[in-house]
Amino acid sequence: MPDSRPIAVLGGTGPAGMGLALRWARAGQTIIIGSREAQRAKQSAEKIQQKAGSQARISGMENSAACAAADLLVLTVPFEGQATLLKQLKPAIRSGSILIDATVALAAAVGGRASRTLGVWQGSSAQQAAELVSKEVKVAAAFHNLSAELLNGSDALDCDVIVCSDDAGASQITLALAAKIPGVRAIDGGKLENARMLEQITALLIGLNIRHKGHAGIRITGLPPEAYRAAVES
Amino acid sequence: MPDSRPIAVLGGTGPAGMGLALRWARAGQTIIIGSREAQRAKQSAEKIQQKAGSQARISGMENSAACAAADLLVLTVPFEGQATLLKQLKPAIRSGSILIDATVALAAAVGGRASRTLGVWQGSSAQQAAELVSKEVKVAAAFHNLSAELLNGSDALDCDVIVCSDDAGASQITLALAAKIPGVRAIDGGKLENARMLEQITALLIGLNIRHKGHAGIRITGLPPEAYRAAVES
Repeated sequence: MPDSRPIAVLGGTGPAGMGLALRWARAGQTIIIGSREAQRAKQSAEKIQQKAGSQARISGMENSAACAAADLLVLTVPFEGQATLLKQLKPAIRSGSILIDATVALAAAVGGRASRTLGVWQGSSAQQAAELVSKEVKVAAAFHNLSAELLNGSDALDCDVIVCSDDAGASQITLALAAKIPGVRAIDGGKLENARMLEQITALLIGLNIRHKGHAGIRITGLPPEAYRAAVES
Repeated sequence: MPDSRPIAVLGGTGPAGMGLALRWARAGQTIIIGSREAQRAKQSAEKIQQKAGSQARISGMENSAACAAADLLVLTVPFEGQATLLKQLKPAIRSGSILIDATVALAAAVGGRASRTLGVWQGSSAQQAAELVSKEVKVAAAFHNLSAELLNGSDALDCDVIVCSDDAGASQITLALAAKIPGVRAIDGGKLENARMLEQITALLIGLNIRHKGHAGIRITGLPPEAYRAAVES
């Protein structure tokens, strides 16, 4: 994947989107922060630029403009905003785009606890996303379980990223993107329907964070070395 | 917890039950293997004795007799056998007993895939167990995510055990039992309702094992040291 292929982080002004954008900007990727308001997107892009350094390539745009400017899209919005945003963006998302969904249907979306999930008719937030975009968009699910606070720091993360998709190409790109985050090992988790299990883990980790006061992540142990894809230390 | 307090592993002739029994027998616990047939229980107990050594205290009994002889019960049956067994054992389980449920509602129970789960009305297999026993029985959920094959070996496990229970005493006992397994770190996962997330992880790990040919486990990272309980190396 060439570093010049821009990644649009939609709804990217929140902590998870900013953190992912920061890590990818540091890794040399070209980043577009998308937001409902172009001005807010630009402000977030400037903040990330300050942290990532002047060589980082990062800009901010309204979400639809970001979709027009990129075909590699990462969705980092709270569940309550996911469906509305995707319905609105559907005409703007280019055919053949890859949409990486990091949404988790936390019960917080309807005023409940972030340590519980809602049942999603389609099976998972990622499958809801797949239903809401055109069939020519390839959907992957990933990045549910990375601590936003740790992403926004400088240390390597102690967490694996499991990637689920029904499209082999989208899986490969998403695995490569995950492996660009220092400390992350990317693991192919199979079909998009498996995203529902990844989303449950987020709620579990949030509960552990509340109970034990930490920034929990997960590591998958016991797989052969070739199952893990990690950044080559430079 | 005194080592002489016997642990009855109900439905303990399967790989998961045998593996847990082996590890606890090696750690000095007194073990009773429970099975529908006393003879089968005795055979399994002998097999474990051979692996654990002559100093190990282990016997085999029919499940009801095992319940009469112990108030620390570990349930390791496939989901399709859980409800029937608990209804049958309800009169035999002593008031005040701790029942540790390791059941996962895999779709394999109804001829589906072991990498998918069934929806359980009560929320999880563990909550179904709690509904099926008397109110005086304290239910905990744990040990869903330990590889049976690795448990039956000799190496330390590379896996954490998250314990969920509504009873603080049952949680503490279960955490202590988990920490007796070499390599395992035990983590308090809060209320019994959280077991549904642990059960999802089992299906995820089974899917990863099928895809990548391994014996997957999980580690929880990012919690403060006091959140982890592990065996003191002797």
